[in-house]
Amino acid sequence: VGGLFLSDDTVGDVGERALLAHFRRRIPVPPGVILGPGDDAAVLATGAVTLMTADAMVEGVHFRRAWSSPRQVGRKVLSVNLSDVGAMAGRARYATVSLCLPAALPVAWVEGLYDGLLERSAEVEVALVGGNVSGIEGPVVIDVALLGESARPLRRAGARPGDVLMVTGTLGLAAAGLALLQAGVQLPEDAALERACVRAHLDPDPPLAFAAALAEVDGVHAGMDLSDGLSGDLLALCAESGLAAVVHADALPLGPPLGAGDPLELALHGGEDYQLLLAVDPARADALRALAARHDLRLTAVGACAAGPPAVWLERDGTRTPLPPHAHQHFTPREADGT
Amino acid sequence: VGGLFLSDDTVGDVGERALLAHFRRRIPVPPGVILGPGDDAAVLATGAVTLMTADAMVEGVHFRRAWSSPRQVGRKVLSVNLSDVGAMAGRARYATVSLCLPAALPVAWVEGLYDGLLERSAEVEVALVGGNVSGIEGPVVIDVALLGESARPLRRAGARPGDVLMVTGTLGLAAAGLALLQAGVQLPEDAALERACVRAHLDPDPPLAFAAALAEVDGVHAGMDLSDGLSGDLLALCAESGLAAVVHADALPLGPPLGAGDPLELALHGGEDYQLLLAVDPARADALRALAARHDLRLTAVGACAAGPPAVWLERDGTRTPLPPHAHQHFTPREADGT
Repeated sequence: VGGLFLSDDTVGDVGERALLAHFRRRIPVPPGVILGPGDDAAVLATGAVTLMTADAMVEGVHFRRAWSSPRQVGRKVLSVNLSDVGAMAGRARYATVSLCLPAALPVAWVEGLYDGLLERSAEVEVALVGGNVSGIEGPVVIDVALLGESARPLRRAGARPGDVLMVTGTLGLAAAGLALLQAGVQLPEDAALERACVRAHLDPDPPLAFAAALAEVDGVHAGMDLSDGLSGDLLALCAESGLAAVVHADALPLGPPLGAGDPLELALHGGEDYQLLLAVDPARADALRALAARHDLRLTAVGACAAGPPAVWLERDGTRTPLPPHAHQHFTPREADGT
Repeated sequence: VGGLFLSDDTVGDVGERALLAHFRRRIPVPPGVILGPGDDAAVLATGAVTLMTADAMVEGVHFRRAWSSPRQVGRKVLSVNLSDVGAMAGRARYATVSLCLPAALPVAWVEGLYDGLLERSAEVEVALVGGNVSGIEGPVVIDVALLGESARPLRRAGARPGDVLMVTGTLGLAAAGLALLQAGVQLPEDAALERACVRAHLDPDPPLAFAAALAEVDGVHAGMDLSDGLSGDLLALCAESGLAAVVHADALPLGPPLGAGDPLELALHGGEDYQLLLAVDPARADALRALAARHDLRLTAVGACAAGPPAVWLERDGTRTPLPPHAHQHFTPREADGT
């Protein structure tokens, strides 16, 4: 590991302070960072409006070391936060990372985690500006706080009756991937669809460039990211906007049937899609489709907003039934929430 | 607990989502918060320069439920971050709080934690703008990310040979308090000094108003907060500023002898003082003393900066000896670091 530590060193052997000093040297200082890691606080260039969110990943709850490489964990903990800033029509800029590491954890695992954090932050031009490393008598915990900016933040409130509901990407892939991992299926090399689902769970890829571009588009009245599953997330949007919604089952962008669950159920209730749910003025839907096409992104109209008390209805074969929220269950109930 | 939960409910009984919704209702929305908790990210009014820091507290490492009330834990996790922003001559504004809570944790404990977070944030006019709650198969973890602002951020770098080294408050009290707790001493009601030490450990009170005022004072060349003990922290300041320092043992503002360790040793090496260490132009030392007096704060000249490779020397009875860093050891090595 960088020539500094032995290959079988643990966090306890090396000490958290030495680890922190080691990894700090790897962290670049991009534009906007007036003062990076190493002082009592970072000093950052910001605009008049700043977005702020934080989301943690806990070993045994959000990831397992048997399934995820440390690089994937590092990438994902940034991605889930990037998705939140993107959902505000924002562009992410600065992140802090708090690590809780058990003494027996191999240093090589921490090195892999930093590989993922550095790789992902470089991809999206986010500066890692600080954080802390602490011991823990328990699982690995990684908490990221992320700052971003948006000329016009997109909220969950603001949807209007008659708005078209649109989603990016394909829904239910990550939940299918998790189901495959939980079933312990050994995937053959040529199982490309299955592998894509597993990758969607382990290394999500939110549509960040499209999301940031939404700040410059008229007619997008409300939006959020799909992290807990469409049924629950759409109900949250309805509650914030004070209206109801109808989802057309036939219109949903489903994943392929893989024996990992019914694709419709996975699309409705599976979590961790990290795609966008948008409420759009129907007159602007085509313009939004054109924007998505420029970003090489699938964008699908899946329903509409309607006046009424907050509720989600599923229309299927000509009949409407209530669609109760059925939030994605992680290993244990996953309740980490946005903001 | 607010009439919503039963008095013996656990986090597992109630679910993290219900807890989050419950506590969100208690959070006020102060000025500057354009959009508070509940969306994908908070939207905050910021200036051209923003300070950012994050620091976590881990049960069993930074606190014990047997020693700290949940209210004290909530206050302290904010205070240690407030101290970092203060040390940059900053004023804190916005915080996110990430909680990892084991299922067996009583809801009443979480309620107490929020009491402390809300009470402390109100005292210092910091807005709680978001965060997340997650399960954990392990100890309680609380991570706070804090934003602040400063017209002129104070760094660790910038001290000059000849600068007077000054510290606020009394050093070693928190370390003495921790030693008393670790010794299991039952303190009588009238043991005011001992109780003050225990309080310094459980509920630190960094000099935040004085710290923020430093941005308007000339001649303060460098500064940091004392979190790991003077010996190690001063060496960090020396390293960042590229010089050496001499500490006069006779000048240190020591705590009283309480049988909890030698006051000099506690002042030199005890951690968690959350006081300020400043390198000051000697010509401005009196002006700084006057500022401290206006804040009803003890400010003591304890040594001086000198040209030379980064090192700390202790002058005692006319002789100088090297003062190696001997960082404060928490229950397990505490390595959480600033920024």
